[in-house]
This record gives sequence, C-alpha cells and structure tokens, in this order.
Amino acid sequence: MAFQLPEYAAPDFTGPDFADRPLAAFHPAPKDGVSPKNFHATAIFPEYYQVASGVWKLPGHSRMDCVAVLEPDGEISVREPRSLKKGERVACGRGEDGQDGIYVHTAPFGATLGSCEKFAFRTRMSRESSFSIDYDELYALLEYERDHGRIIWVAGPAAVFDHDARKAFTRLVERGYVHGLLAGNALATHDLEAAYLGTALGQDIYSKKSPPLGHYNHLDLLNVVRDCGSIKAAMKAGLIKDGIMKAVIEHEVPYVLAGSIRDDGPLPEVIADAYAAQDAMRAVVREATTVIALATQLHSIAVGNMTPSYTVTDAGVIRPVYFYAVDMSEFVVNKLANRGSLAAKSILTNVQDFLVTTERSLSGGI
Amino acid sequence: MAFQLPEYAAPDFTGPDFADRPLAAFHPAPKDGVSPKNFHATAIFPEYYQVASGVWKLPGHSRMDCVAVLEPDGEISVREPRSLKKGERVACGRGEDGQDGIYVHTAPFGATLGSCEKFAFRTRMSRESSFSIDYDELYALLEYERDHGRIIWVAGPAAVFDHDARKAFTRLVERGYVHGLLAGNALATHDLEAAYLGTALGQDIYSKKSPPLGHYNHLDLLNVVRDCGSIKAAMKAGLIKDGIMKAVIEHEVPYVLAGSIRDDGPLPEVIADAYAAQDAMRAVVREATTVIALATQLHSIAVGNMTPSYTVTDAGVIRPVYFYAVDMSEFVVNKLANRGSLAAKSILTNVQDFLVTTERSLSGGI
Amino acid sequence: MAFQLPEYAAPDFTGPDFADRPLAAFHPAPKDGVSPKNFHATAIFPEYYQVASGVWKLPGHSRMDCVAVLEPDGEISVREPRSLKKGERVACGRGEDGQDGIYVHTAPFGATLGSCEKFAFRTRMSRESSFSIDYDELYALLEYERDHGRIIWVAGPAAVFDHDARKAFTRLVERGYVHGLLAGNALATHDLEAAYLGTALGQDIYSKKSPPLGHYNHLDLLNVVRDCGSIKAAMKAGLIKDGIMKAVIEHEVPYVLAGSIRDDGPLPEVIADAYAAQDAMRAVVREATTVIALATQLHSIAVGNMTPSYTVTDAGVIRPVYFYAVDMSEFVVNKLANRGSLAAKSILTNVQDFLVTTERSLSGGI
Amino acid sequence: MAFQLPEYAAPDFTGPDFADRPLAAFHPAPKDGVSPKNFHATAIFPEYYQVASGVWKLPGHSRMDCVAVLEPDGEISVREPRSLKKGERVACGRGEDGQDGIYVHTAPFGATLGSCEKFAFRTRMSRESSFSIDYDELYALLEYERDHGRIIWVAGPAAVFDHDARKAFTRLVERGYVHGLLAGNALATHDLEAAYLGTALGQDIYSKKSPPLGHYNHLDLLNVVRDCGSIKAAMKAGLIKDGIMKAVIEHEVPYVLAGSIRDDGPLPEVIADAYAAQDAMRAVVREATTVIALATQLHSIAVGNMTPSYTVTDAGVIRPVYFYAVDMSEFVVNKLANRGSLAAKSILTNVQDFLVTTERSLSGGI
Repeated sequence: MAFQLPEYAAPDFTGPDFADRPLAAFHPAPKDGVSPKNFHATAIFPEYYQVASGVWKLPGHSRMDCVAVLEPDGEISVREPRSLKKGERVACGRGEDGQDGIYVHTAPFGATLGSCEKFAFRTRMSRESSFSIDYDELYALLEYERDHGRIIWVAGPAAVFDHDARKAFTRLVERGYVHGLLAGNALATHDLEAAYLGTALGQDIYSKKSPPLGHYNHLDLLNVVRDCGSIKAAMKAGLIKDGIMKAVIEHEVPYVLAGSIRDDGPLPEVIADAYAAQDAMRAVVREATTVIALATQLHSIAVGNMTPSYTVTDAGVIRPVYFYAVDMSEFVVNKLANRGSLAAKSILTNVQDFLVTTERSLSGGI
Repeated sequence: MAFQLPEYAAPDFTGPDFADRPLAAFHPAPKDGVSPKNFHATAIFPEYYQVASGVWKLPGHSRMDCVAVLEPDGEISVREPRSLKKGERVACGRGEDGQDGIYVHTAPFGATLGSCEKFAFRTRMSRESSFSIDYDELYALLEYERDHGRIIWVAGPAAVFDHDARKAFTRLVERGYVHGLLAGNALATHDLEAAYLGTALGQDIYSKKSPPLGHYNHLDLLNVVRDCGSIKAAMKAGLIKDGIMKAVIEHEVPYVLAGSIRDDGPLPEVIADAYAAQDAMRAVVREATTVIALATQLHSIAVGNMTPSYTVTDAGVIRPVYFYAVDMSEFVVNKLANRGSLAAKSILTNVQDFLVTTERSLSGGI
Repeated sequence: MAFQLPEYAAPDFTGPDFADRPLAAFHPAPKDGVSPKNFHATAIFPEYYQVASGVWKLPGHSRMDCVAVLEPDGEISVREPRSLKKGERVACGRGEDGQDGIYVHTAPFGATLGSCEKFAFRTRMSRESSFSIDYDELYALLEYERDHGRIIWVAGPAAVFDHDARKAFTRLVERGYVHGLLAGNALATHDLEAAYLGTALGQDIYSKKSPPLGHYNHLDLLNVVRDCGSIKAAMKAGLIKDGIMKAVIEHEVPYVLAGSIRDDGPLPEVIADAYAAQDAMRAVVREATTVIALATQLHSIAVGNMTPSYTVTDAGVIRPVYFYAVDMSEFVVNKLANRGSLAAKSILTNVQDFLVTTERSLSGGI
Repeated sequence: MAFQLPEYAAPDFTGPDFADRPLAAFHPAPKDGVSPKNFHATAIFPEYYQVASGVWKLPGHSRMDCVAVLEPDGEISVREPRSLKKGERVACGRGEDGQDGIYVHTAPFGATLGSCEKFAFRTRMSRESSFSIDYDELYALLEYERDHGRIIWVAGPAAVFDHDARKAFTRLVERGYVHGLLAGNALATHDLEAAYLGTALGQDIYSKKSPPLGHYNHLDLLNVVRDCGSIKAAMKAGLIKDGIMKAVIEHEVPYVLAGSIRDDGPLPEVIADAYAAQDAMRAVVREATTVIALATQLHSIAVGNMTPSYTVTDAGVIRPVYFYAVDMSEFVVNKLANRGSLAAKSILTNVQDFLVTTERSLSGGI
C-alpha cells in the first residue's frame, strides 16, 4: 500500500454561490484578551475571509475555537482570544457559507477525509473494530511523511513504562519518524529514570521487580537532573545512557514538556505556565502534517484542540493533517470526537503493542 | 529466553506435620446431584486425600469448586456436584492442612508459580504495567509447549473481526501452536462468514466497508451451513476457503463450540446444553498444560473455573498449568482473579495486536 | 413529567407508493431449521406483508433476525429459523419498501422514537452525558407501565452483590414495577446466598467482610436448594428469608433463569439448553412494553436481540416497546447499538445507584 | 450510623525500640530547588524527626514525596523540593524505623484506617463491590465534618454536565458541606455556561438539545467573563443566575481553579502556572479533614499526591484525613492506589448519581 496525498478541492469563488457576498467584517478587540461581540470562531477546516471584493484569504495556519485577526500587513492570522491586544481587528459573523463574508470549507479533500460514511463508521468505533487497514494506511503514511512531512508525537507516560515500547519509540526517533514530541513531565521523568536506574516509578521496566527503596528512584532522578541544570547537562554528565529523551535531544527533534499539577520535580525543561506551554506546543503543531497521540487524555485533547484538518506547506500546497489517537479506552477516543476533532482516526489498543508493532512494520530509516 | 519447566515440590507426608492425621472421610451423596453436608470443595491446587494410613492420594485431574469422589477402584476423581449419583462417596471436611485427612498444597512449584510477590504485583496490574517480560516468557513457553505440552485457546469473536488477527490465529493453528479451541457460536460464525463472504457481522474484515444488505451475511452463512449439515460438509462443498475453523478441522484440533442465549443460528456443531458444553470443555481442558483466553468474559471465566494450577502428565510428572488472560479491560481480568483463579497472568491489550505480535514472534512450526 | 403514549402512524397502503406492489412471496423451508434462499429477515420495526391484493398483514409479535412464516390460518408469525419445519412457508425477498411485497416501517411513532436527532445523540453517548431527563422520563414511564404495561427486567449478578441495591430491587417487585425477570444462575444464586447466609460469593453484602470459609457459601446454598428440589421448596423450608427471588415467586412474577457455561450448581430452575432458554425468554419478552437491562452483557444482548421496537396490545393498540440498558461501560452499550438494537436508551452508571435512586424516586405501589 | 473519630495511637518514644536512636541528620540544600543527596522523602503517614535526644517532632502538615526542612525556629516543615532555598536544612536518611532518627508511623489510628485486610480488599475493588456501607459511612462522616472538620471537593467537569448533579452540588455548598473546591477551568466554565445560557459545551444540561450555534456558548461565556474581569464581576452584572461557582463565591468557600493545556479562555481566576496552582491547592488541602475527588483523573491524582493520611487540628488533635475517589473507571482508581495514596476509598459509579444520592441522603444544613 502506497500513500497518495489527496488533492485539495479549492472552492470556486467566481461561481454564483459567492456572487454578492459581503466583505468579512473585522471589529476591534475591546480589551486585551477580549473578543468583540459576535466574533467568529474558527473550526478545524480551511476558512476563507473575503477581504476585498472577490479576494478570499485563507490563513496559513488555523486551529479550532480561535479568532481570525486581520493583521496590519493584510494577512489573516488565527489566534487564541487570550492573546488579543486591544484594538486588533477580529473577524465577526457566524454564518459559514459566505453570508458574512466567511466561508468554511468542510470537504477540502473530497471523500478522502471526513466523508459522511467515515463519520458514521467512527461513531461506532470500538475495540472490536478491525484495525488491519488502519495499520497498513498508517505505515504507508508514516513512510511518506518521514521524508515529505512532519510527524508529531504526543505521548503519555505509558509509552515508557514498558521496556520494549520505550525501545521502539527510541528507534522511531533514530530512524527519522519523529519530527516533534509533545509530552509532560511524567514521560520525560520516567524515561530518564529508566535510563538512570532502570526503573519507572520504582519498578524495573523489564522484570517488573521493585528494588528496595525503589519509590525514591524518580525523586532521585529529578533531583539529579535539577542539580545538573538540564536534561542535556545530565546527558553530558553521562547519567542518561539511552531512551527517548536522549534520542530526541541528539537528533535535535523539537519537544515541549508541558507542566501539570500532577508533577513532581519538575524537570528543568518543563514549562510551568499552561498557556505558555500551549503556545510552545502550537508552534510545533503548526508544522505538523501528521499527529499521533498515545495514551494521554490530557495531552491528546490539548493537541487535538490545536490541530487543524489542513496545513499549507512551504511550497504553498494545501494538504490534510492526519490525526491518530491510540488509547485503550472508548471513552477517551469519544471524548476527542465530542470536542469537534472529527478528523481523528482511532486505534484502540495498548500503546505498548502499538509502538512495538509499528516500529517493526516500518521500512526505511537508518 | 528458554522455558524451564519448574519442578514439583512434593509434600513430605512422612514428616511430623502429618503424623496422627485422620483418614479422609467419604460420605454418600444423599441424592443424585446433591453433595453430603460438610462436603469438601476443591481449589485450583493439588490436594491429597489420606485414603489409608500414610497413603495420600492426588487426583490426576482437578478443578475448583468441585467435589472429590472415592471411586470404586480406589482412585479419587474430582467431579462436578451436578454429576453425582446417589450413594457415591464424597470427601467431607473443610480443613486444608490435613486435620480432616485432606491436604491442599498451595505452593506446589516453589516461588516459580504464584509467589506472594507476584500475587501482590498482579493486584495492581493495569494497562500501564510493563508487559515485555510477559511476552518473552509466553513466547518461550509456547515454543516449549508446542512440542511438549498442549496449548488450549479460548477465544471470543474479537479474534476474527479483524483481518490480520484472524490470519495470525489461523497460522498459529497451522504451525502447531493450537491443541484445542474453546469458543462460542459467534467466533465460528463470523470466522466462517469471513471465509464465505469476506465480512464479519456484515462489515468487510479488512476494508471495514459494509456491502449492501451486509446485515444478511451472517444469517446467510448460518443458513447455508445448517443446510449442509455441518461445518465440515460446508468445507467439502467448497464454501469455506480459509480461516480458523478450516485450519482447526484440517489439523484435527479438538474444539468445542458452546451455545449461549445470544446465538443466532446456531451452527450445527454448537452444543446447546450449557452443562454438556461444560463437560466437553473440561475434557479438552483436562489435557491442557497452557490455556490462553482471548477477549471473552463469558468463556474466560468458564474455562478459568475448570482449569487447575497443575496437571499430571502421561509420564506421571506433576507440572503447572499456565493460564493467560488477554483483554482490554481491567474489570474482566480482575473478575477472573476475584473468582479465585489466582494463577492467571494477564496481558491488557487488544487481542488483534496480541495475535499478530505473538504469531510473528514465535519461531518454529511449518 | 407525565408519560404520554405516542400514537402509531399507520402506513397508508391505499396511497400511490403502494399501488402495483406484488404480493409477498412465501417459499417452503427446504429442511427442518433451514430457510429457503433469499429469505427475508426481520428487523426491530413493524413489517407488513401483502398477502392478498391490498391486504398488508402486520405480525403481532416480532423480533430481529428471524423469518416470517405464513401460517396455515393465514396469519404471519415471526419465528427463529432454527424452529422451522420442512415445508413451512417463509417470506422471501429483501426489499424493504414494498417492491417484494414487504414493507418495513422505520418511523412508526413519528419523531418520538428513533428520530435522527436521537441517533445523533446516542452515537456520542458517554458517561459524561446528562442523564437527568432520562431518569425523569424513565420514572414517568415506569409509573405508567406499572398499571398499563409490562416491565421486564434483565439483570446480572451486580444487582444483588450490594445490600441496598438488592433491597431496592426487591421493593420494586413488591411495589408492582416488575412484570418479568430474565437472569442467569448467578443472580439467583447470590440473591439466595444473601438470603441464606448474608453473603454474595462469600462476602457480606453490607459489611464486605469475608467470614471464614465464606468461599463455601454459594456452594452450600446451591447444594441445599438442589437438595430441596426447587427454590420454592427452599422457601417453604424457611431457608430464604428475603430478597428478589422470594419476592418474584411470592408475587408470581414470571422469571427465566438461563443456564451458561460459567455456572456452578446450577439451581434446579435453571434452563440448561440455550435455545430452550431463548424460547422461554422470548415468551416473557413477547408481553413486554418496557425492558430494563442491568449490568449484564450476555443477557442484555440476548434480550436486545429478541425485543422489537413495537408491540400490539390485547386491545389491538400498536405501541412502542422501550428498552433501557444500564451499564458502567460505553463498550457494552455501543455493542448493543452495533447489533442493530437502535431503539435502546442507555444510562451509564453503576446499577447499584441506579436501583436505589430509581426505587426511591417512584411514587405509587404498596 | 454515627461517625466516631478514631483516636490517635501515639508512638511511645520512651520505649526500648527508640533507645539509642541517633538524631535526624539535616543537610543543607546544595542549590535552590535541589535536595542534598540521600534526602528523606515523606510518605502519607505521620513521621517523627528526633531533633534532640528524646525529642521527636511531628510536622503539623505533611504530604508525600516532599522533603522535611528544619526551619530556623526549630520546627519541621514538609516542603516541595522545588521550593527549597540553597542552604536550607533538609532531613536525610531513608530508614523508616528510627535508625536514621526518623520514624514513619504507618498505623496511626489502629485498625480503623488502612488495616491490612482493608488493603487486601481494596486491591480487588471493582464496580461489582458492594458500596452500601461506604455510602452510609460517608454520610455519617460528612454530617460530622460539616460542623467539626473541613470537606474539600475536587471535581471534573462531569459534575456540571448534568442538570440534577449540578443542582445537588450547588445544594451541598449551600448546606455547608463544602469547605473548599479544587477544580479546573472546565468545571467553572461549563457551570457558568449553564448559568448564562443553560448549556454545557453547547448542549442543554437537561434536555440535551443542542441549540443552533451552541458550540459558541462556552466561548461566549468565556469572553463575557473575561470582559467583566472576574467571575464575581460577572455575577454582579447579573449574568450568573445559579450554580456551583455562584454558591461557592456567595458562601465564601475557598476555591482554586488550576490551569491546564486543554483550556479555552481561560477564566480570569484560573492560575496559569502549574506549580503556583499546586501551592494554592495545597494551602486548601492543608486544612482538609476529608477530601472527595469526583471524576477527574488529573485533579484527583494531583490532590491525592498532596493529601496526607493525618492532620493536626487547631486544638492539637491528630486525626485522620479521609480521601474518597469517585469514578467510573477501575483504571483511575487503581492508578491512584499505585501512586501510594493507599488511604483512599473508592466508589465506582457515575458522579451524577453520586452527587444526587449523596445530597438527598444527608440530613442537616439550611
């Protein structure tokens, strides 16, 4: 199975449907971080704003539940409302078919993405769905994206609690299949704990034995990295012999570790401010062509919220952004769908198996 | 990793702990299917009955929640209470340390099986437990058992809803890793539906597309097999081109299809009577040295109930019976444990991945 | 909130859509238990068969995945294919809009049942859905049905593992809210174990303490009831002091205990043959106007399979049959929906709370 | 059932077990936010530090995975390692029985709290456990704590998605059963959305209908509150007619809204910095005598991490801190247990039912 990039079905704004449509209205933000009344909120789809008669502009980067700002240079940027400055000009109007000068393009890639049939199918997705074709499509996609796209991984700590899964993930980094990593303090801490002491939360990641005082292990790891000043410094000090964080840093893969109220430590690189972390994450997601979210409800939903269904490449090509959620729980996967991230594909399984199987099935790299 | 059969630690009945122990008491069943008061119920462990001074007898085949009958030939057999005949002599007494002439041997294989530490670990088993070592141990075990034991598989229909999983299971049969199959009408029906029409419950098992009127497919399959008179007859008629049932029949692997109130059809081979089905299942389990239960709460618990922790081989060797439960749900796995099947090991994942990964990781066969 | 029975929207067979429709074709069953080729399978909806020009017959009792037989008396009966006798005349043709003389009426009660909106809602049903209105509607429904319908309950053993839930269920029987009970050996066994010894599977149903040798309790209960010969005989012997089975028997509520391969015992009343059990269950379901299935995947799906979306009352009124599934797991609830039982409403919660809250919220009775 | 505060079993440091024990060693923190090597990490239990011969000091407030600092005034405070200042004196040594001058008191309230038997039981806790006694104990506890303790609630948004549950929670606040609220942006946003527009995430919290453009509702609510400048200001402007946040603010219940990367908005009161949020949360938890965590994995684990098993009241009484986790998922509950929060009790159900049933069952208040 070879991956074929679907072609973008550009709307024809010269057609009769778009005749006599008004220009999009842009009203000033009344205060910092506050939108004007009747603001338009973005969805995951390409959206066009008529800024001059017959000129419909598509923002290069979008995401849902944000506002569209007409920048001084005449471009449209999609921004979180909290980042608005007083007086910035925000698109207003909630019609989606051009009646307010805004057009939401819900079928940008024909039937390939988000067709009605697929939506219908996904609503009944369960652990008993057949996933063979999803795996095959995913392998083909990843092999394509390794060279022509950017694959961003979102991962909860389950990805490092298991010896083989952690090794497979590390290999994926080394083989060029990871162009960004979005995670929390826990993933990095337990990955580094495994590198430093062989355990995760005090339990050997292979034998599952718990050494005496093993519950100190993650605290000792956190303390020693904080003492070094950074993960990289701990690596230079020879404390980190293997693992995902080591591979990510050595291969200069961008990563964001977002802080949370569950954290011990935290590691020095963790971003404490949730909204600064969102900004850093979105900067990585902005470049994404495929996102794979593994076993983390918090991060999957956070990244799902900021991942659009399309992106515009440097060469100006409009193409889909693929989103996969891998989790054990129908609830998590449905929750993602309930928030409007309809383009997500789901594979219901243990991420341990997912990582080992996927790494083993991919060709290419190294 | 090579599998090493643990040695049996036989109790020393000549030691001081067993001096002055009474003979086991056997009282007649008052009616057909009724045990005498104070009957002794078996556990999953080896149990010895002192039938003459210093003579402690171990039944060759046991299972939990049954009674021990002193047969006319002087042997002890472990029997379901419902099969008792009036007057048969049933062991009575509930002491487990010999005080009633009955000794329950709870550590038959030393620390290798069911040590306290492992019990403690398992109680916190979750999807985030590390399963690498469990897979490696399982592969080593299966390679050993293929030639020296008998591997019995218990499977719910999820094992055939997916193209690759069904193929992997079929290959396991062909490669000699399946010595018995315990399932229900649904597994066989949807496996045969896939062979006959390419679908399971009307959905293509690879593409997930639903052909028009696909909801007739399993009904048509059931009807055509019932018309043929048997699965084997349908095979001879050329209707069944591949799959698990075909492989099982061609390789003369014993199988039991137990009926349930959920069934359509049923297929001709399905045993309608639940207790006749139990008897047929136990006849297969009696020969088991390893049991692997995949994604079926009903059958897993049913087989868990009838699987002892040990067996006596034809050569007279007392060895463990291994029990693995593979499921997506902590609830199912805990439910198994809560019923006393403490020797079970669990792998929490989707059986699709489990089957594909396991088949791919095994050497030998064909 | 008062319950209002929705009116039946009878199809107008005199209209132009039905002009020139052929008569339904009935072909003889080629063998016992085998349908003719191209048999028509029933759905959960009212279906009409044109048996003479302009005469469209509706079977009084239907269920999905069965066949329609033209009986010697000219009536249509919906039958399980396994019960066909050679030569019986089975409706053939798979068109659903009259083109084969068969009309499937998918909107029998207007928007009240199975509207598009409701379908949409259900596909995203989760534990985080709001259930207040469902409870209020259910209370109103149950108060109506207590006097004007028949409420059939389907229950797994979870309904009796808890002291307050068991008491609430018992009260529901006593107060007239239970017109039928469909369950397995486990529910009855543990309910009677609680009545006899205060425990369920050996654990006190209130204090959760495990008395010494408590794991004998359910075996002792089974043995003593088998010795008495029936549950009723055990009641007469004074062994069963309270609980659901006692209330059901005293109030002459019909019940079916279906056997399964998981059973110990079984109790004397348990039906061993799965298909005889299906027949007995369907005889109860045939009279149902509301079905409530509690925490049992096996029985919920079995009963869901045999419950139509409508029934014809003795007075000849065509009215809906309501089906509620109460379970902790999105998986179970979705599984029910995936099998075509689209008219089911779901409440995701622990049945313990469901029973206590429901019983406390109902007025009337006693 | 009346609640009885268990008595503290103070260790007898004059006994022979504690003769010849060394003083606790306190070593300076080498840097800000870094602990000295061999630091002692606290558990959830009372821990005593021998600061002078025969003088064993108990910190007034503890929590697990922190360090013990000997403050200039001679008191011991339990602090997050990240808040250490260079040179502060940190307790070192990992022995728990006094051999390093530190004594961890694991049975502070005899068998009442955390007995071995209870631990064993909880490891098999499932949705099928009997919860009647837990409810009764909880009601008695809450009635006691309302007047003599401080009940802190931790809640995910599921508590406000449902009409009746939100009303019950509001009533609990009004009736004096809520002394602190720990939540995230989502709970407050959807509670206020319900007050402002009647919906949660755009769906009516009673009828479940989705008004046109309902997906704008939570964005509009966030925008309007941000425009007002605070929740309180929005209340004064008459926008918030009912609900939990209104009750909490009117009754001057302390609350913390911790930011997360999933947030839209956020509301003005939300604390963006994860560790500042931890500090604010711990300030509330420090006063807690009972904590009830509802349907939130993130916040439950965060608060579980910072909740000790005991507290010292203003009157100097050492008493237990009770922790209840209410969730649909065995996984979440086990995850809490796996992190060492062993004193947690679990009730597996939907929080909607939990809130409605609990509020209805409590006497007193108003």
